[in-house]
Order: sequence, then C-alpha cells, then structure tokens
Amino acid sequence: MTSRQSAQDQAIIAPIWEYFGRYAADQQRVGASGCDFAFGTPHDMPIPQFGEGLRACATPQTADWFAYKMSEEASQRHVAEVLRWHYQVPFAPEDVCMTNGAAGALSLALTTLLDSGDEVIINLPPWFFYEGYIAAAYGVAVKVPIRADTFDLDLAAIAAAITPRTRAIIVNSPNNPTGKIYPAETLRRLAAILAEAGERGGRPIYLISDEAYSRLLFDGREFMTPTAFYPSSLLVYTYGKTLLTPGQRLGYLALSPAMPGREALCQSLAVTQVLQGWAFPSALMQYAMPDLEQLCIDLADLQGKRDWLVRELRAIGYEVTVPAGTFYLLARSPIPDDITFTSLLAEHAILCLPGSVAEIPGYFRISLTASRAMIARALPGFARALSRATSIVAWTADRSAHTG
Amino acid sequence: MTSRQSAQDQAIIAPIWEYFGRYAADQQRVGASGCDFAFGTPHDMPIPQFGEGLRACATPQTADWFAYKMSEEASQRHVAEVLRWHYQVPFAPEDVCMTNGAAGALSLALTTLLDSGDEVIINLPPWFFYEGYIAAAYGVAVKVPIRADTFDLDLAAIAAAITPRTRAIIVNSPNNPTGKIYPAETLRRLAAILAEAGERGGRPIYLISDEAYSRLLFDGREFMTPTAFYPSSLLVYTYGKTLLTPGQRLGYLALSPAMPGREALCQSLAVTQVLQGWAFPSALMQYAMPDLEQLCIDLADLQGKRDWLVRELRAIGYEVTVPAGTFYLLARSPIPDDITFTSLLAEHAILCLPGSVAEIPGYFRISLTASRAMIARALPGFARALSRATSIVAWTADRSAHTG
Repeated sequence: MTSRQSAQDQAIIAPIWEYFGRYAADQQRVGASGCDFAFGTPHDMPIPQFGEGLRACATPQTADWFAYKMSEEASQRHVAEVLRWHYQVPFAPEDVCMTNGAAGALSLALTTLLDSGDEVIINLPPWFFYEGYIAAAYGVAVKVPIRADTFDLDLAAIAAAITPRTRAIIVNSPNNPTGKIYPAETLRRLAAILAEAGERGGRPIYLISDEAYSRLLFDGREFMTPTAFYPSSLLVYTYGKTLLTPGQRLGYLALSPAMPGREALCQSLAVTQVLQGWAFPSALMQYAMPDLEQLCIDLADLQGKRDWLVRELRAIGYEVTVPAGTFYLLARSPIPDDITFTSLLAEHAILCLPGSVAEIPGYFRISLTASRAMIARALPGFARALSRATSIVAWTADRSAHTG
Repeated sequence: MTSRQSAQDQAIIAPIWEYFGRYAADQQRVGASGCDFAFGTPHDMPIPQFGEGLRACATPQTADWFAYKMSEEASQRHVAEVLRWHYQVPFAPEDVCMTNGAAGALSLALTTLLDSGDEVIINLPPWFFYEGYIAAAYGVAVKVPIRADTFDLDLAAIAAAITPRTRAIIVNSPNNPTGKIYPAETLRRLAAILAEAGERGGRPIYLISDEAYSRLLFDGREFMTPTAFYPSSLLVYTYGKTLLTPGQRLGYLALSPAMPGREALCQSLAVTQVLQGWAFPSALMQYAMPDLEQLCIDLADLQGKRDWLVRELRAIGYEVTVPAGTFYLLARSPIPDDITFTSLLAEHAILCLPGSVAEIPGYFRISLTASRAMIARALPGFARALSRATSIVAWTADRSAHTG
C-alpha cells in the first residue's frame, strides 16, 4: 500500500511511464533490426577513453579510496575551474555539489528549495520528468508554453504566471526537445522579470538552469550559461549527455557566485544529499571526473547525422526543426495525433518519442544517438509511414466531405 | 534561502552534523598519528578483489554498457538467488530494487510509504540519520528506547507507541551501535504485535529491516533476516559494510515474498527511484555486483580486533559490551557526559563517537575498522583518558562533599 503522495506522483508521470512500457515492448518486438530514435541512449560503442578512465581509478591508492565521499574538495575545485574557464564566471569550489547526474542535481535543488505547495514554473515542452520531480518535492508545476513561432521563452506569459508562491523557474537551454539555445536578450529580460518579482515578493525566485546539453552544440555555436544573467541561479550539469554514458550517474549543481546567501543554501543542499540516501556520486566517478571532463562524443559525427536526417526527412516531406544544440530533432507529426503516428512508425521498426508524452502534441522527437546503420535502415520506413499517414488524412478528409 | 522543510530537517540532524564538524577538525589536528575509531570507515587498504571487480566491468561489452540503468534484471535475479540461498525464503527477482547503498534503500522505502505526518517507530539508540530520513519523507519519528538491561527491543513499549498514524517501524539487526542480534523470539512477538495493530488499523504497519551488518557476525553466529517473521517487510542491505567500501554506493531493498500487494508497491518504488533523481546504482556497480557478492572483509581479523580491544579496555577499567555482530564496540563513558569524555580521548588523538549524538548518552562507540596500528597506539591514551576522567569524578565528588 503506497502513500497518497506516491500515488499522486505516479499519476503525474503516467503518460511517460506508460510510454516506457510501450517502448520496451516495441524494442522487444523489433529486436536487432529496430531503428531506435526514442531516447538519448547510446547505440554505438562508448568512447574508449571512458572505460579507460574508470579502470585507471579502480585501483585504490589509499586506505580510504572507497570510503564515504560527499562532494569531494578535489571534484569541487575541478568543476569550479572548468566553469570559470568556460564562462569567465568566478564559480567557487564550495558552491559546487557533486550529484548523481543532472537528475540528481534537479531533485536536490527542488527538494532543498520547496515547501509543500510552492510553485515552480516550467516551460512547455518540458523534460518529461520536471513535473514529477516538482511533485515529489511537494511542489506544484506551473506550466507556461514557449512561443510556438520561435520556440523561445514566452516572457510575458512567464511574468503573468508568477504568484506569491513562485519559488523557482526551470529553464533548459540548449533545449530538449526543441534544440533551441535561448538568446542572451531573452535571458537578460527573464532576469529582470525574476528580480522584479522577487523584490515584490520579498524573497528570491530561483532560476534552476538545466544545462545537460551545454556541450552538445552545432555549427560552431557557443553557449553562455543562463546563470550568468541572474544572481539567484543554480546550474545543473551532467556528464551523461556529453559522454553519452548516463548510467554512470555523474553531474553537479553549482550556485552562481553572485547568489546572496549561498553559504547557507550550500549547507542545506549537503544536508539534503545526506538525507536523500547519501546521494553523492561514487568515489570512483569522482576520481575519474577530471579525466572524463576532457572527453566528448564526436560532435562532428553528431552534426553529420543531424544534417543527413534533416535533409532526408525534408526530402521525404517531413517538417523538421534544425536544432542548434542537444542530440534531438523535433519533427511535426503529419497527422495531429502523434501517438498514432509514432505507432505507425513503430510498425516500420522505427521508435520515436511521441510529442504528447512530453507536452508537445502534434510533434515527435528523433534522437540522433541512433547509429548510422539505424538511420540508413529507417529512411524507407519514414517514407512509407508518411505516405500511409497522408493517405489516412486524405481518406479522412474525403470521408468528411462525403458525410459532412 | 532554504525551505522551512529543509531547515527543519537540518535542525533534526544538527547533533550528528555538528559532530561531523568536530570530527573533521580533530582529524585535521591529530593527522597521521591519530587513532580513528569514530565511524565505520576503512583504515586499511580495500580488499584487492574489489578494485579488480570494478576494473573487469569497466570495459564496455555492448553499445548500451553505460546507458541508463534501472534495477537491472540480472542484478535482481542475482540478489533474489543470494537471499534465497542465505535464508531459504523465496524472494522474487521482481521484488528487488537496486539502490545506492542501504541509505538509498531506506530513503526509498520511507519516501514511498509515508504521507505527511505518518509515524515511524525507531528504537533508541538508532542510526543517527533515521530521524532525519523520516523527516525528509515528511514523516515523524516515534522513539522507543531498547531495554537497558538486555539491549533487546522493548516490545511492550513498541506496542504502546503504535497509533493510527503508525506506518512503519525500523528494526536494525545486527544493531549499530549495540552489536545485538535480536533473537527469533523477539521478532516473532514483534510480528504478532504489528500484525494485530495493522489489522486493528485497517492497513499494514511495515517492518523496514535494516540489515546493513548482516554478514558481519562473530563467534560463528548465524543471522536470520527479520523479514522472514512478518509478511509486510522490506529488507535493506548494502555492500558498503560487508566490503567496507561505502563510497561505491551499492545496496538493495527487497520485499518479502509474503507481502500482500507487493506488485503495486514495487511499481511505486520504481517511480520514487526515478523521481529521486534516477537513483539507481551505476551501470558499473550493477555489473560488478555478482563478483562483489562473494567477497567480505576479513571477519577473523575483525573478531581478533574485537577480542583484543575488549580485553585491553576491560583491563584498563572500561565497561565494554561484546558485540555479536557489526564492527562496533559500545563502551560506557566513565563520566556521565560522553561528549566531554570523547573530547578527553581526542586530546590523546583517539577519535570515538560520543553516544549523545546517537541517542545513547553515557556511552561512546568504537569502530573496529580502525587499523591494528591505531589500536596499539591508542591503548595508552585510553588508559590516560580513563584516569583523568576518574580524577575529575573524584575531584567533583570531593568538591561536592566540601561545598554540599
């Protein structure tokens, strides 16, 4: 007998949870011949240096090599240094919490910041677990759709959504699933809105900046952390995307050096990590981190896959967004019901994430982490699925015309 | 600005948290010449096979080697098999949640089972984080001291502490810090009390059985899981104690095969793990687990250290309990104020956990994970601290006699 709280959390994530079930069944059914674009999971062998990095640190050098670790000073120093190098922002080592991936960092930030009933603004389409994470921290997600024309944040709508209970906003740039990098001007205006509202409300509204994809940039783009624009910011990062090794659970939460009261907040964050089950990354991953920090999946290859798929899918007749970052393509479903359309794709052994489970109905998401062999194999299926969808549309229209 | 909830959690764990600070300062001060008995952390090199086990699994064998993992079927099957072998209880693979150590398993169970205000009975002295974990899950700890004479559970007091809000009880056997293994008869009677109260209240009271030390047994003792005595039981285990590698975060939560409604509860537990930040053990640790399962620290050596220290400390004049399991000795503080006494020990570079921070005032805890060199070095200091304490007691008594 689960708690009411757990039952509520479960209901909130039911759409994506049910899709997990369908996906697992589809995977089973299509087997090795499947073309799996559903999630940002690896379908090529890991970077060789990754395993080597782990092996190098698996030989203990001291008696306490595998003893309890919290956020180790060496890890914190290294992260702060890397962030300073990337962004020319003076992040401080003591403001870095080492976490079990970005998911751990998000859960940590929300659990520490929220009281029961506090509101967190999320932008739609969100990562499919944001609302569940907020609910699990006893908070309430307040949903603001992005602008349909530009995929940029809808600042007026965000401003209008702020209430006295607003505790935080989650911003994800580069964005999953749109691939959008929010422009500096948007972030500057967002900062002004948050600062003004925080002053009005007498307590800061925190910006939780989910930067899981910050190193996965196309066309030579640069990325500036949104936390640089607003003092009360928390930066969420994971090595799981950059290295495409999400099963090794390594990431961090870093507080903006401009944040007022960050010492007290850091203390609370550490307490939360202890009470979440000693939720610090393993000793091994913390030792390996400086070596892993220098690695990245092959971005040129990723961009090549992006360009190939965009070109081919457009040639077939799909409407596809060209992402500025992340490893996702967002495509319009040729029929309004994206669940039906992704089922149609699945009949051709092509697995894609239906937009409806990530609150962007009418679209579907294609992960570029699929192998080149999968892409090649999938193209005829993408074509056939589209023509079937088109004939369904034509048939439906024809039928409406006759019965209308 | 932290939440009220976080501030409350922080206040609850303040005694042990402050001790962490003192301990770190003491460690720094005493340096390499210190004798560190404060926590169950390694002071000798890890078992060589441990690092080898990790290294063997760090070379990826498939494209998805380091992909997202949940509770992997292979891990679940192995754990169920091991539990069946150990206890002749038919644990089912699907009822096993792989967790980040026992701490992860405890947090998972409490978070999934508790609604705001639900009560959880803990026996004093408890693990110093139980109350914090319960509070972090929005629950309330109800504290029942063990019997001072036998260190056994106080069943009458437990029965009297049950209310309509009682959701669970945490039992820790072999017990930290008393070293007690609760006898079968106690567990049988506890089960009857819980079953009767659950029936009366119309919902089960769960037994959360913290078995972190279940493999660390002395004098050829055997251990039977308390979960075998009561259907609505959850077994908490970690490899961190058996292997003395707590920084690698590997453990599990296993539901009794006799538990009614365990399928629904398993589903909820998986959802909680996802919403706690994808709180599953890393891919590497899950691959390594079957090999690690066969390892254990040197129990004969541990028992040798126990016997040596008990003999020497008793010869010096300390009152020490002989533990049946775990790697702790519980000793009486020669003066009522155990904080003062452990400070006295610290002046002799001997670090021990004061009982007051673990709700057993008047005692202090000695971890047998200290190295033999530390033990040898510490014996004169233990003697000097006792005689200083005795002279303080004599002086105080003398002073009271003169001023009284």
